[in-house]
Amino acid sequence: MKIALDAMGGELAPQATVEGALLARKLWNIDTVLVGDPEKIRPILAKAGEEMEIVTATETIGFDEHPAKAVRQKKDASIVVAAKLVADDKAGALVAAGSTGAAMAASLLIYGRIKGINRPAIAFPMPTIKGMSLVLDGGANPEAGANNLVDFALMGSLYMEKVIGVTSPKVSLLNIGEEEIKGTPEVVEAYQILKQSNLNFIGNVEGRDITSGVADVIVCNGFVGNIVLKYTEGLAKGLFSIIKEAMLANFQGKLGALLVKNNLRKVKTRLDYSEYGGAPLLGLKKITIISHGSSDAKAIANAIRVANEAYSQKIVEATAQALEKRADS
Amino acid sequence: MKIALDAMGGELAPQATVEGALLARKLWNIDTVLVGDPEKIRPILAKAGEEMEIVTATETIGFDEHPAKAVRQKKDASIVVAAKLVADDKAGALVAAGSTGAAMAASLLIYGRIKGINRPAIAFPMPTIKGMSLVLDGGANPEAGANNLVDFALMGSLYMEKVIGVTSPKVSLLNIGEEEIKGTPEVVEAYQILKQSNLNFIGNVEGRDITSGVADVIVCNGFVGNIVLKYTEGLAKGLFSIIKEAMLANFQGKLGALLVKNNLRKVKTRLDYSEYGGAPLLGLKKITIISHGSSDAKAIANAIRVANEAYSQKIVEATAQALEKRADS
Repeated sequence: MKIALDAMGGELAPQATVEGALLARKLWNIDTVLVGDPEKIRPILAKAGEEMEIVTATETIGFDEHPAKAVRQKKDASIVVAAKLVADDKAGALVAAGSTGAAMAASLLIYGRIKGINRPAIAFPMPTIKGMSLVLDGGANPEAGANNLVDFALMGSLYMEKVIGVTSPKVSLLNIGEEEIKGTPEVVEAYQILKQSNLNFIGNVEGRDITSGVADVIVCNGFVGNIVLKYTEGLAKGLFSIIKEAMLANFQGKLGALLVKNNLRKVKTRLDYSEYGGAPLLGLKKITIISHGSSDAKAIANAIRVANEAYSQKIVEATAQALEKRADS
Repeated sequence: MKIALDAMGGELAPQATVEGALLARKLWNIDTVLVGDPEKIRPILAKAGEEMEIVTATETIGFDEHPAKAVRQKKDASIVVAAKLVADDKAGALVAAGSTGAAMAASLLIYGRIKGINRPAIAFPMPTIKGMSLVLDGGANPEAGANNLVDFALMGSLYMEKVIGVTSPKVSLLNIGEEEIKGTPEVVEAYQILKQSNLNFIGNVEGRDITSGVADVIVCNGFVGNIVLKYTEGLAKGLFSIIKEAMLANFQGKLGALLVKNNLRKVKTRLDYSEYGGAPLLGLKKITIISHGSSDAKAIANAIRVANEAYSQKIVEATAQALEKRADS
């Protein structure tokens, strides 16, 4: 099954998207269908001396448009056409690097929710000292009740298990203390439900644990998750600029900076969440992987790889089954 | 007026607290009264060949005790005795590096709230690319209504102006988007009130702006603020350990690391929020500055300096006046 790619989405599209699709084919033999303007896509394919299926979409949705409105009005937008391919089983999953809101709105409207999930969530991979943790919700739901948080925990756990390959993922609630009674009423109630669930619930984690890798899945509402997500981007960038400035402050530092440059570049790569293949939208009847707006070809390729993995591992079916089982018990 | 110091509070107390008080006297000629066990304090003073006023307190409150309960029961705990000195005008302000909860409980019970403030807040200094921003609430109020957020904005603005010396501080709401309609109902409502206030309100900032220095005061509820505060601690620590590991991965890197070592230490210092003198508890009738639990002498000295500044600049009176003016208008 092919993966549908919004070839027009993202700051570096269509150059980076088309190159990313080519890279995914080269590295992992995954086939992509490119959705967008053939006039813009073909020259890039031609230059690479390659061919790839293109499905025409004449419109695009920008970062500054109202997501739901744009999705409803622009029937021929690349993100809308791509989501329809997936809904119609002409592609296995969708990869989108354009407006996150538009990707969410299109996925929600065109796929629909899994039965039993009221609030789909954006799950984002967060680099840790040990590897990667999944934080959700990343911004789809600024407010979330106890049951929503419990759903996030279930969906995140299944994703880490099936797609990332973590056995019995450690699931946690992001909170302001470790004790059961800490936090808002929603979090306190979610704690009690999770304690009795069959998830590997390890309790609350605090802000300082986000990068420690102590939990595989970190659950919070979309307000908190979005702040954490964007703060991480800002802090990593800010910290590197401060470090660079400090290193270059004198001759000795400049010399040293030259010597550690390559090693530091590896740190930056490790902190780059595009390495982990983008953020899955969980709780819908089909799979969408949201890639960063500034995704380069490598990030797109990684997102395609993860989308393919999520499709092959039947993450949607696994989630639906787990919810049925939960409803029965 | 002297500053009251809980000499028994903090992981390195009483060594670091007493040394911090001596340092504050040496550097800025600020006088401190040490509250705690004279048997433990005197040898440290003697070794330094110095004298300082000691007020005896026979009990201590640990990090693992229930704050409000401990404060009520242990009438002779160092934090309780120190707060009483301030309430009785025998000291101008309190510095505490022990249990944050106990310092808050003691301050709240013994000082009382400023008229018009329902929810006092912890404000913490956050290092940015440009210098420092104040984030509040840092954890006193996991939930906060629109009016509480507006109070935090007012108190934070006055603190930055009077104590830190920022002219017309730029005040912002921490949110998941820049638009007025973004976020939870509380934040949306607070936006409308702040827009019409006489504060220098610059609108919403996102997670990525926290370290950019775009705002002087960043307002959020205590759940979000606490996650940001602790995440920052964890991330800075985690990132430095990843950077160190990466630099030392090969011979060239080791050599370079040796050369940039001193410069990188300066970065760590800059990111260390103890440099900015601890976190003020705002909205109470007297001043408490909370210093980090692992504060060393320098951090304690800085907290004493800031406590003295807050007292001299009459931050409590300024807040009370601003609230009266607001109530009249």
